[in-house]
Amino acid sequence: MKAEIIAVGSELLTPYRLDTNSLFLTDQLNRLGISVIHKAVVGDGPDEMRSSFEHALGRADVIVSCGGLGPTDDDRTRQTVAELLGRKLLQNEDVRRKLEERFRRFGRAMPEINLRQALVIEGADVLRNPRGTAPGQWIEARGHILILLPGVPQEMRALMETEVAPRLAKLGNRRRLYTRDLRIVGLFESEVEQRVRPLYGQYPDTETTILAGANGIQLHPRIWSDDPAYAEKRLGELVSRMALALGENLISTCGEEIEEIVARTLTENHATIAVAESCTGGLLAERLTSISGSSAYFLGGVVCYSNAMKTELVGVPAELIEATGAVSSEVARALAEGIRKRTGAALGVGITGIAGPTGGTVEKPVGLVHIGVADVRGTSERAWRFPGDRERIRLFAVQNALDSVRRHFLFPPAPKPHQE
Amino acid sequence: MKAEIIAVGSELLTPYRLDTNSLFLTDQLNRLGISVIHKAVVGDGPDEMRSSFEHALGRADVIVSCGGLGPTDDDRTRQTVAELLGRKLLQNEDVRRKLEERFRRFGRAMPEINLRQALVIEGADVLRNPRGTAPGQWIEARGHILILLPGVPQEMRALMETEVAPRLAKLGNRRRLYTRDLRIVGLFESEVEQRVRPLYGQYPDTETTILAGANGIQLHPRIWSDDPAYAEKRLGELVSRMALALGENLISTCGEEIEEIVARTLTENHATIAVAESCTGGLLAERLTSISGSSAYFLGGVVCYSNAMKTELVGVPAELIEATGAVSSEVARALAEGIRKRTGAALGVGITGIAGPTGGTVEKPVGLVHIGVADVRGTSERAWRFPGDRERIRLFAVQNALDSVRRHFLFPPAPKPHQE
Repeated sequence: MKAEIIAVGSELLTPYRLDTNSLFLTDQLNRLGISVIHKAVVGDGPDEMRSSFEHALGRADVIVSCGGLGPTDDDRTRQTVAELLGRKLLQNEDVRRKLEERFRRFGRAMPEINLRQALVIEGADVLRNPRGTAPGQWIEARGHILILLPGVPQEMRALMETEVAPRLAKLGNRRRLYTRDLRIVGLFESEVEQRVRPLYGQYPDTETTILAGANGIQLHPRIWSDDPAYAEKRLGELVSRMALALGENLISTCGEEIEEIVARTLTENHATIAVAESCTGGLLAERLTSISGSSAYFLGGVVCYSNAMKTELVGVPAELIEATGAVSSEVARALAEGIRKRTGAALGVGITGIAGPTGGTVEKPVGLVHIGVADVRGTSERAWRFPGDRERIRLFAVQNALDSVRRHFLFPPAPKPHQE
Repeated sequence: MKAEIIAVGSELLTPYRLDTNSLFLTDQLNRLGISVIHKAVVGDGPDEMRSSFEHALGRADVIVSCGGLGPTDDDRTRQTVAELLGRKLLQNEDVRRKLEERFRRFGRAMPEINLRQALVIEGADVLRNPRGTAPGQWIEARGHILILLPGVPQEMRALMETEVAPRLAKLGNRRRLYTRDLRIVGLFESEVEQRVRPLYGQYPDTETTILAGANGIQLHPRIWSDDPAYAEKRLGELVSRMALALGENLISTCGEEIEEIVARTLTENHATIAVAESCTGGLLAERLTSISGSSAYFLGGVVCYSNAMKTELVGVPAELIEATGAVSSEVARALAEGIRKRTGAALGVGITGIAGPTGGTVEKPVGLVHIGVADVRGTSERAWRFPGDRERIRLFAVQNALDSVRRHFLFPPAPKPHQE
């Protein structure tokens, strides 16, 4: 079965807004074995809208639209589809009553124009909207299924999950999409591509999308099949071979983010953490605390931009900075050790580097970042040279700092007999 | 003139990727007086692609496609459009030579398959691609203009700016889109909507898009006109009236972000800043340091999640936290004053609150955030109750903390005769 998604709304044709509903809809449709072959974005002009629906009827078995079900003049999806199918728009008493009830509940009389939302296409099933006023509609016509949903994301999602998906599942389509979600840290997109590409030819029944995000690289291998056992076996095999190719850079095969893995690792080890950041300016602390419950393991962080603050807030000796420069292995180690000492955390992380665009030199170019991790057994440190602009360098640095914490638990440093 | 944008690529029909090129293309087309009436996303199946181009020819004067110009079997845009127009695909010697040169420059022989990228549709103008191997093509046919661009964003952008825009400008279309970019902080989307909506009816020749982002609300009023003076006058009037309706919440009419305004204000006042954050976990420091050159005014930051760290790192008296609780006006003030004292900054900012989803009580619910700003003249403090989930509460808190700094310079606190 093939689907087409139509996003309705003139604001989606400006330089400011994208249709994002279609990502959620595609995921839902794929899970039900329906592939998406075309997506369209149209304004609220009746001619353009009609043309979009008409062409979709020529291509797809299932057509899902979002938007244009509001109460105003511009909301023309109902009207347009009714005309296209040659059906009447009928006032639905049940919908009208529920609309009035809803307004009463909020202590307001229903404006006249909202009556329009009670108009249902002849022969359509009404899809109850638990989150808003616009009900959805399910229409079977000319061997196609048309599904009209509101454009407000939370309303669209609720309707899709509670009303549309169960109906689509009943169609008895045995073909399903099976997927995995691999997360990779510490490699560039082209490096990941190079390592896994040779596998594509050996699994021609699968397809893999590669995606570079703020938190590393994602690989989404997938297979369409009506045999769950076969699909799981093939995907399992492919993922195992990808895992071999990616080694310790593969951090998850189920979509777990690096900060979630770090949070879980710290919690499982009853360990606490504190961070001292220079060039990442608070982004590492932000990432660690973006997870609810992070107060259990995150003790504190310091953003020390200037040399004086590295000394004042984290206790890095001024002579050390003087001797090695603020961007050095030694200062990264001293930041990690200093913040650990000051906060009493089990783990201390120190980052110092040059995010640019200014401040680079021949010996210490823009993109050079040192990351140190300290615990009771000692301190490990590593230097990177990241490409890209200020924002990308900061993202890469934080990604690799989080990965350094993960690796610290995988490969702990050897204990040192004498520590400073 | 009306345009349609077609994004070609099967990965754009997965749940993982959106076509974002169309935002840039829409902006460029709008500036040249061309409105976008339809956007389509198609895979690399020849039937679907053909159907998309065919329907676009029935609707639009200008058709811009992105993607499908690579060297592999899946890259079928050239072929599909040639067949649709009934034209030949010809090997272009000039393009071939340039391709070979490019490969030679990188020290490699050109693979056979790249010859495909030298195929040009009969009668097409070749658009030289300064950033990659795939040249663009400009085809005039049946009263339409078809523009084929590569899908790689930086190649698409370069080609659009250097090759396509000048050609489109020559068409002599005097109608242009005129726009403004208003930024609003401290109001919710619905509040902004309510204040400016009454103006829409009085400026029916304009259209306004409202957008809620991480940094506040954006209003994009715009007008199509062939008379620059009229357009500027109307937009100027509308923006003035919006400014009256929005008051001190309007921070910019030219798209300046709140952190840019704060950076500029601090620089202009030769002032330095330091921050102590609890519930925002480093996000305020991150935002302040996201700007290149921030080391001139940003001295340092502390992320103090636990009570002990508020005392250890920022010097908030343990008895004060004991007496008022960690989330209180008093602690917000003490954080602002403490970090100012410890770093020697001109301005100190303190944030304490409950980002949730856990930790809320009846008296101190999730979303309660106190923000303090301290300088030599005294300390101001304000409490908010933000709606939404953890992420939104943190974003709102940082947005308003930055705005508190802006307001601190607009409306400085009265000097106090006796300070502690």
